[in-house]
Amino acid sequence: MRLSKELKQEGDLPVYGFHDPESFIQLIQKPRVVIMLVKAGAPVDQTIKTLSAYMEKGDCIIDGGNEWYENTERREKEMSGLGLLYLGMGVSGGEEGARNGPSLMPGGSFEAYKYIEEVLLKVAAQVPDSGPCVTYIGKGGSGNFVKMVHNGIEYGDMQLISEAYDVLKSVGKLFNEELYSVFREWNKGELLSFLIEITADIFGIKDDKGDGYLADKVLDKNRDESGLKEERVEASKVFKSGGFGDILTDQGVDKAKLIDDVRQALYASKIWSYAPGMNLIRAKSIEKGWDLKLGELARIWKGGCIIRAIFLDRIKKAYDRNPELANLLVDPEFAKEIIDRQSAWRRVVCLAINSGISTPGMSASLAYFDTYRRERVLANLVQAQRDYFGAHTYERVDMDGSFHTEWFKIAKRLKD
Amino acid sequence: MRLSKELKQEGDLPVYGFHDPESFIQLIQKPRVVIMLVKAGAPVDQTIKTLSAYMEKGDCIIDGGNEWYENTERREKEMSGLGLLYLGMGVSGGEEGARNGPSLMPGGSFEAYKYIEEVLLKVAAQVPDSGPCVTYIGKGGSGNFVKMVHNGIEYGDMQLISEAYDVLKSVGKLFNEELYSVFREWNKGELLSFLIEITADIFGIKDDKGDGYLADKVLDKNRDESGLKEERVEASKVFKSGGFGDILTDQGVDKAKLIDDVRQALYASKIWSYAPGMNLIRAKSIEKGWDLKLGELARIWKGGCIIRAIFLDRIKKAYDRNPELANLLVDPEFAKEIIDRQSAWRRVVCLAINSGISTPGMSASLAYFDTYRRERVLANLVQAQRDYFGAHTYERVDMDGSFHTEWFKIAKRLKD
Repeated sequence: MRLSKELKQEGDLPVYGFHDPESFIQLIQKPRVVIMLVKAGAPVDQTIKTLSAYMEKGDCIIDGGNEWYENTERREKEMSGLGLLYLGMGVSGGEEGARNGPSLMPGGSFEAYKYIEEVLLKVAAQVPDSGPCVTYIGKGGSGNFVKMVHNGIEYGDMQLISEAYDVLKSVGKLFNEELYSVFREWNKGELLSFLIEITADIFGIKDDKGDGYLADKVLDKNRDESGLKEERVEASKVFKSGGFGDILTDQGVDKAKLIDDVRQALYASKIWSYAPGMNLIRAKSIEKGWDLKLGELARIWKGGCIIRAIFLDRIKKAYDRNPELANLLVDPEFAKEIIDRQSAWRRVVCLAINSGISTPGMSASLAYFDTYRRERVLANLVQAQRDYFGAHTYERVDMDGSFHTEWFKIAKRLKD
Repeated sequence: MRLSKELKQEGDLPVYGFHDPESFIQLIQKPRVVIMLVKAGAPVDQTIKTLSAYMEKGDCIIDGGNEWYENTERREKEMSGLGLLYLGMGVSGGEEGARNGPSLMPGGSFEAYKYIEEVLLKVAAQVPDSGPCVTYIGKGGSGNFVKMVHNGIEYGDMQLISEAYDVLKSVGKLFNEELYSVFREWNKGELLSFLIEITADIFGIKDDKGDGYLADKVLDKNRDESGLKEERVEASKVFKSGGFGDILTDQGVDKAKLIDDVRQALYASKIWSYAPGMNLIRAKSIEKGWDLKLGELARIWKGGCIIRAIFLDRIKKAYDRNPELANLLVDPEFAKEIIDRQSAWRRVVCLAINSGISTPGMSASLAYFDTYRRERVLANLVQAQRDYFGAHTYERVDMDGSFHTEWFKIAKRLKD
């Protein structure tokens, strides 16, 4: 009742409720297309079983949830055995996307995609000069795989923004009003994105249940390590009694310089967070023969979804320049951007380390960069170690073949 | 033929070969105990099927491979249905362990363990004052789970040693002769371990196929990112043309000071690599009701296996002091060691960053430390973001309950 009243208010939308699957399926125009949004795993199998019992050859089911891509591939095969079509479609957009259009990542049966292409093109978020945020991703579970990586990138973005916040607040001593201005300013440049925009918004909102700003009242309890809140409180006591404060050294910093450095570090880290994400998709595409178009993915992420950002346009252009690009970093434009920002990036990470602040995302992306850009890294030692204790063999820099050395015997002889 | 000749030379060992499973099983004294070492996954299932066909109630199969622990639990149940017993036993030791005794991590049927306890106690590596490197780990797949984490720790150790090597060689410009001396010296103190010992050995060995030392001729091709050798060569060209050398700045360093700093950084990072490993075991033990004894695990790793080290004795003692220890770091002894070494640790990581060298292991462990030791980390922003775009709700620092804020509406009102 409440729903139908709300729907009336939203514009008298044609929404119907059903109590049994059969009458629901019978009512739909053929070939039938049903989109389901249920919890990934067993509930999806159960729903397919329930719906498909009443479906006819050529009908189609679309899973709009975050399903593991291999499950989608299994289901597509099973459905195909019944003469039915199947799509696994990643959907990103949150509350706002649900109202104003999400980014859609449908993969699986191309025939099924064609059935509903017209609808998807209208439903998806629309980006000026880029079109609707949807494209046929590819065969099998490719839509789910791409959505999974998208979510990884999303969490990477949120982590990096939190680290920037930590450095600005804990080292730079910026107040919420200043943070609000900084993020608003950043949202006018290369960092322009939904997540930067909402971060600015968050710092501007006062607490309606007490003094001060709401952001400071939100508990810092997250899904992984930061979830160990109670343990951390105990640990901080142990280390405080050892002379450790929350912030190790009160370093005098030039605020304006710090803000500019953090902006550059955030942007550089962002490139290094997107690069492995895109390469994960690229590697899986090659393995599965999906032939995914990385530039198209960047395009459909430009609107609707949580990671929408002006930055994605640069990624799209990099893949337009070279669809076979091995890594974003070797694109000449991105390489130049990294070179311009790497000093600031290193300054911020070292400042954080010396202040006793952890910037795991920025440090890891910087480590990835320095590993990738060096022609020779010192994994030769690991190879030698593995050959020493496990006879795993190694290759040589100067000749072909696989080699094994009796390291232990030689070393023993040298010591005797 | 060759094998039997070798066995003759080794001391006329009673080894027999069989061409069919039935005559093999028939020959064994009841209750039969068979240890298999085959590739994890389907080959294990196949071997069980083949052997169990001829086995009788109370007989036992032991899997000595690196099996996923859930497979072991499934097999134990299946075997139990046939009246047979099953153990999943982690084995670490490499070539040398095979000859002089490995570290053994048997989990599963306690009855089966009791059958062969006497043999395992003799076969395992023997450590003075600590006894044989074997204990009954616990029920189900606990033996495999513990071995899996052991392997993670092993790779962590190797990674950290490689990073120490990289800093000493690339920044400190140490020659192989010096590296040899440094690692030999380190092996007399707190870092004393099999991996440090073999690292010293490796740097002492000359190339038998050319000039110089063998370590420099081993190709730096590893399993993950460093495996992208060809891509890295291309990337290094792109960045060299942008003015980036392999090492960014030639910083004048005091060699003796650097070596001492790196030793401390390596030790501190090692604690931070073992801590999450032990906690992974602890969490799984609680989840599965395995009741694992962490101190006992440290004890049986003191000999035979690749990670054997004097350091494990300190871990054992920490759990002896407090079997319920939430994290190694809050043990007073380890906390003190960290406090003493943290300045050197930070210096090394920053020196590496400024030199353009990646120390992902040392940086990640330092970030883990700084996250863990701080009472409040800034995950509050991530919680606010998630509530903003997905209505995921959040908790507050000052009152109980779950909260949701209409961030977007409030922010919009503020902007209008």
